[in-house]
Amino acid sequence: MSELINSEVFLAYSTYSTIVLLKMLLMGPLTGYFRMTRKVFANPEDARAHGAKDEDARKKYMRTDPDVERVRRCHQNDLENIIPFIGIGLLFALTGPDLSTALLHFRIFAGARIFHSIAYLLPLPQPSRGLSWMVGVGVTFSMAYRVLKAGMHL
Amino acid sequence: MSELINSEVFLAYSTYSTIVLLKMLLMGPLTGYFRMTRKVFANPEDARAHGAKDEDARKKYMRTDPDVERVRRCHQNDLENIIPFIGIGLLFALTGPDLSTALLHFRIFAGARIFHSIAYLLPLPQPSRGLSWMVGVGVTFSMAYRVLKAGMHL
Amino acid sequence: MSELINSEVFLAYSTYSTIVLLKMLLMGPLTGYFRMTRKVFANPEDARAHGAKDEDARKKYMRTDPDVERVRRCHQNDLENIIPFIGIGLLFALTGPDLSTALLHFRIFAGARIFHSIAYLLPLPQPSRGLSWMVGVGVTFSMAYRVLKAGMHL
Repeated sequence: MSELINSEVFLAYSTYSTIVLLKMLLMGPLTGYFRMTRKVFANPEDARAHGAKDEDARKKYMRTDPDVERVRRCHQNDLENIIPFIGIGLLFALTGPDLSTALLHFRIFAGARIFHSIAYLLPLPQPSRGLSWMVGVGVTFSMAYRVLKAGMHL
Repeated sequence: MSELINSEVFLAYSTYSTIVLLKMLLMGPLTGYFRMTRKVFANPEDARAHGAKDEDARKKYMRTDPDVERVRRCHQNDLENIIPFIGIGLLFALTGPDLSTALLHFRIFAGARIFHSIAYLLPLPQPSRGLSWMVGVGVTFSMAYRVLKAGMHL
Repeated sequence: MSELINSEVFLAYSTYSTIVLLKMLLMGPLTGYFRMTRKVFANPEDARAHGAKDEDARKKYMRTDPDVERVRRCHQNDLENIIPFIGIGLLFALTGPDLSTALLHFRIFAGARIFHSIAYLLPLPQPSRGLSWMVGVGVTFSMAYRVLKAGMHL
């Protein structure tokens, strides 16, 4: 199994997992952008740093905003779905799958998750977001099945 | 260390980490099931897709529900506890522990987390959920201790 | 690439990723500590276990508290930032960087995230927390750039 870490499959895993992790990481600055442009903060010290000089202004700034909450739900969905892909995908890459099989899984997952974020943030009408979420879950389950089929030690 | 990736210990890590990641991933569809059967949504486009035709109906559907929130807290607790297990468990497996030691850690962790979800969702009276959470944290700390004891480079 | 897993760089990755994962994991007990000392719970069974004998007492205990919410936001920020570091950092360590380059990345990240938690929990006035968050994101982006530059398979 150890030579598999040098393989094209591992390189493909490395490429796609970096891409989806960067996509997930970018949701943080996006939340920050919405918080700053809409003056919606979760901490009094943030409100103060963005011009809320007295108690009243700070209270006004510390509210929830539908757009900020939308970005946060999108980020949370990424955490819930991209992280299992990273873990199971690594194990899948180490089982030595065909390069074409591996690429099929990685490409569909990355495409589905990028589409999911677009569908969440615009937002597109359902079921576009729901379907892209299901595709991502399906890819992860397919990889998990192949990992467990390749060998188990319970 | 590189031959360790071919070992029985690594196979055991692969098996148990896939199982707990799948368990975590399944909390997503479970949340979706509760949202759809109870008509509780976080996004207006979801309410619309589930039969809320006008603004009033959408507002009625966009609320929080104790059962949905319970599944979401259970999912969040999985994110907070299973992910450190995946990361630290991989490093622990690569330090070359005895198979029996590794299996002991992995089995207790997987059992504790599956019990934790059952205790959260039924729910069972406390301290059943609290204790299963502590067992999971304890296993992760034990593995982290062995990783750092096996070698450090600060 | 497979001999890299035996390297000093991989040992450094192992050390620092264990440290930041333990730091993240400790936010769980810290949340529990605040919940128990302030009698602020999210589940009725938790309120019952901490002395709320009747329905009225349980309702009183099930509220949100600014300090508990602050720890939870700090924990969430760790999930959003430390997990991409773990995934991308592993791939970065496997590309065979200079030990000094790798240590520079890992030390700055670990320092920035520990400072971030202190700045969040005390709290320190902004922009101390914002800057430490940016430093962490910057280190992860720098590692991702090096992973993709070392080789891609799209």
